Amino acid sequence: MQEHQGNTQQEGQSRYERGWRRLQDLDSQAGQRVLETLQDIAPDLATYIIEFTFGDIHSRSGLDLKQRQLIIIATLVSQGDSEAQLELHINAGLNVGLEAQEIVEAVMQCVPFTGFPRVFNALGVVKRVFDKRNIL
Amino acid sequence: MQEHQGNTQQEGQSRYERGWRRLQDLDSQAGQRVLETLQDIAPDLATYIIEFTFGDIHSRSGLDLKQRQLIIIATLVSQGDSEAQLELHINAGLNVGLEAQEIVEAVMQCVPFTGFPRVFNALGVVKRVFDKRNIL
Amino acid sequence: MQEHQGNTQQEGQSRYERGWRRLQDLDSQAGQRVLETLQDIAPDLATYIIEFTFGDIHSRSGLDLKQRQLIIIATLVSQGDSEAQLELHINAGLNVGLEAQEIVEAVMQCVPFTGFPRVFNALGVVKRVFDKRNIL
Amino acid sequence: MQEHQGNTQQEGQSRYERGWRRLQDLDSQAGQRVLETLQDIAPDLATYIIEFTFGDIHSRSGLDLKQRQLIIIATLVSQGDSEAQLELHINAGLNVGLEAQEIVEAVMQCVPFTGFPRVFNALGVVKRVFDKRNIL
Amino acid sequence: MQEHQGNTQQEGQSRYERGWRRLQDLDSQAGQRVLETLQDIAPDLATYIIEFTFGDIHSRSGLDLKQRQLIIIATLVSQGDSEAQLELHINAGLNVGLEAQEIVEAVMQCVPFTGFPRVFNALGVVKRVFDKRNIL
Amino acid sequence: MQEHQGNTQQEGQSRYERGWRRLQDLDSQAGQRVLETLQDIAPDLATYIIEFTFGDIHSRSGLDLKQRQLIIIATLVSQGDSEAQLELHINAGLNVGLEAQEIVEAVMQCVPFTGFPRVFNALGVVKRVFDKRNIL
Repeated sequence: MQEHQGNTQQEGQSRYERGWRRLQDLDSQAGQRVLETLQDIAPDLATYIIEFTFGDIHSRSGLDLKQRQLIIIATLVSQGDSEAQLELHINAGLNVGLEAQEIVEAVMQCVPFTGFPRVFNALGVVKRVFDKRNIL
Repeated sequence: MQEHQGNTQQEGQSRYERGWRRLQDLDSQAGQRVLETLQDIAPDLATYIIEFTFGDIHSRSGLDLKQRQLIIIATLVSQGDSEAQLELHINAGLNVGLEAQEIVEAVMQCVPFTGFPRVFNALGVVKRVFDKRNIL
Repeated sequence: MQEHQGNTQQEGQSRYERGWRRLQDLDSQAGQRVLETLQDIAPDLATYIIEFTFGDIHSRSGLDLKQRQLIIIATLVSQGDSEAQLELHINAGLNVGLEAQEIVEAVMQCVPFTGFPRVFNALGVVKRVFDKRNIL
Repeated sequence: MQEHQGNTQQEGQSRYERGWRRLQDLDSQAGQRVLETLQDIAPDLATYIIEFTFGDIHSRSGLDLKQRQLIIIATLVSQGDSEAQLELHINAGLNVGLEAQEIVEAVMQCVPFTGFPRVFNALGVVKRVFDKRNIL
Repeated sequence: MQEHQGNTQQEGQSRYERGWRRLQDLDSQAGQRVLETLQDIAPDLATYIIEFTFGDIHSRSGLDLKQRQLIIIATLVSQGDSEAQLELHINAGLNVGLEAQEIVEAVMQCVPFTGFPRVFNALGVVKRVFDKRNIL
Repeated sequence: MQEHQGNTQQEGQSRYERGWRRLQDLDSQAGQRVLETLQDIAPDLATYIIEFTFGDIHSRSGLDLKQRQLIIIATLVSQGDSEAQLELHINAGLNVGLEAQEIVEAVMQCVPFTGFPRVFNALGVVKRVFDKRNIL
C-alpha cells in the first residue's frame, strides 16, 4: 500500500479548515447556508462538501480560482438539474473576479456540446444572480 | 423582427471561413478528419460544426482560447460518452497553450460535481493523448 | 418463438392486480394519486406503471422490499429531475421498514458516483418527506 | 477547404429571416418571448436559436413539420430538465397539425427507452399545454 | 381499484405474441438475437422487452411505424451510450419504410437540443448500418 | 466554523488506510489496478478514490456491504457509460456475499426507471463478470 500525497497538503491546516476558508473566499455566506440546509438531515454531507469539494479538490494548485469557476459552471450547465449549485458558483465566479460577460460566454460556449435547453435554463440562473447584484 | 448581431461578425469573412480557421488553429488535422468522416453520411453536419461550433460560438470574443478549451473539456467530461470529442479538445487545449497539468486539473475539478466514473474515463482519454504526444 | 415465463407469474392474479397490491403495500395513496394524475391525459400510462413497474418488475422474487427500495432510490438520485418519484419511493422505503438513517445513507452512498449536486438535491426531498412524517 | 452547402440555402433570405419565419409558423408568440427573455442577458443566444435551431436545422428539407416536432418532443422528454422547451414544442406540434393523441403517444413511446419518470414528468407538461388550449 | 385497458388489447393474442410479431416486422433477426444474448443471464428481460416494449408500447395505435421509429431514434440519440439499440432501430426504420435520408435528418434534428457529440456519434452508427446494407 | 465529525472516524487509522482496506475487502486486485492506471496521469485521483470513495463514504456505518453494492450497481446502471466501474462493483458485490441472482435482479429493478438500453448494456457487463468467475 502506497499513499500518494495530494498536491494541496499544507502543514498545520486541516482539510476542513482549508475547505471552509476556500468556500468563504468563493462566497462568504454559502458555507453557513450549506451547514444549515444539511444539519438536520445529513450534517456529514456538509462536512464532505467542505473537506472534499473545497478542501481537497478546489484547493489544489495548477489552476487559478477563475479557471476553476469556469470549469465548474460548465460542468453544472452540462449535467442539468443543478440550479442551486449553479447559483452558488456563478456568484463565486463573480466574487473571484470573473467578469459578468465571461460567465455568460462560458455558459454559451457549452451550446454546441450540450444543446440549447441546458444553456437557456442556465442563463435564467445567471440572470437571477446578476439581477440580485444589480449587474446588467 | 429584430436581428441581433453576434459579437463575432467580421467583415469579409464567411462563418465557414472563420470556423475553418479557428478549427485549424485548434488542431490542424481535425477539420479534415471531420469532413472525411461525415462526407458520405451527412456532409451538412460537418458544415454546421465548422460554421456554428467554431465560426459562431468558439470565435466569439470575451474568453481566450485556453479558457474556451477548459470549458469544453469540462462539458465533455460531464456528459460522458464523448471520447472522440474529448480527444480532439484535449489536443486542441495543448495546441493553444494549456499545460498538460492544467488539463489534468480541469478534469479532476469535475469530480465533486460529476462523480469519479466520468473523470476516471476522461483521464483515460487524456492519457492516450499525452502518450501520443510523448508528454508525461 | 419461445415464450419465457417471468419469475413472478402467479396463478389467478392479473398483472394489474399484483401491481396494484404491491403499490398499495409501498404507499397506500400513491396508486390512487397516479391514476388521478394521468386519467385525463394518459390513463394507459397509469396502467403500465401498475402492471409493468409494480406487477412485473417490483413483484419479482430474488430481492426483498427493502433492497428494492434502496435500488430505486439510488437510480432516481442518479438520473436527476425525478422529484415526484423520489418522494414516492422514499415514503415507500420507510413504509416497508427501511430506517430513516438507511435512506439517508443510501442517498449519500451515491456521492462518489454521481457527484454532490444530485445528492444534495435528493436530500432536499428526503428532508421534505421526513418533515411530513415527523421524523428527525 | 471545401464548403458544403446546407440543403436549405434559399436565395434572398437570411438565416435569421428564415428561422424567424419558421419559429412564427411553429408558435406565433415564441419568438418574441425568446427575444425578451434573453435580451438583457444574452441577446446573441436568441440570435443563434433563431438562425441555427430554426433557420438552419428546422428549415431543412427531408422531413415535414409534424415529423420534426415528434422528434424534438422525443429528444426533450429523454434528456429531462427541459420544461420550457417541451412546452414550446408541444404547442408547436399542435400548431403544425399533430393530433393531441399523437403527442401523447410520442411521449409514451419513449417509456421503454427512458423509463417512466421522464415520461411521467413530460405528460405533466403536455397536460398543462392541453389545459390552456381547452383540449381534453 | 379500476383497471384501464390499454388501447392495443386485441382478442386472442398474447402480449408476447403481439410483441414478437411486431419485433419481427421491425427486424426479422433482432428478436432471436435478443433472446440469445439474454438467455444465460436474464431471459426474463428478453420477455419484458418483447411483451412491454414491443407488445404493449410499440403496438399501440395512434402513430404509424415510421413515426415510432423516428421517435425511438431521437430518444436513443439523446440519451447516448445506446449503440446496440440505435443499430437495431435504424435498421428497423429502414425496414418499415423510412428513407435513408429521413433517418439522417432525424438524427440531425437533435443537434440543437442534445449538442453535436451525441449526433456525431449516432451518425457513426447510421453509417455502419447503411454500409452493411449498401446504402449511400 | 463548526466541524462535523463523519460517522466513520476511527482512532488510529488514516482515511487512506481505511479506504485501502475496504477496497481490498471488495476486490483484492482493484486497488492495485486503480493505482497503476492512474499513476502516470493523475496519482492524486487514486488517492481521492481510496480516501473519499472507500475511506469516507463506503466505510460509513448504517448500511452493510451488500446493501452498499446494490446501491452502487444501481447508480452505475443508471448513469450509463461506466463499464469499468460496473465491472469492479459487480465483482465486489459477489465478493461481499451477494448472490449472482441478486445482482441480476438489482440491474433489472432499474428498468422502469432508466429504460431498457441502460439495463441491457449493464447485463452485458454482468455476463462478462459471471463468465470470468464461471458463474451461470
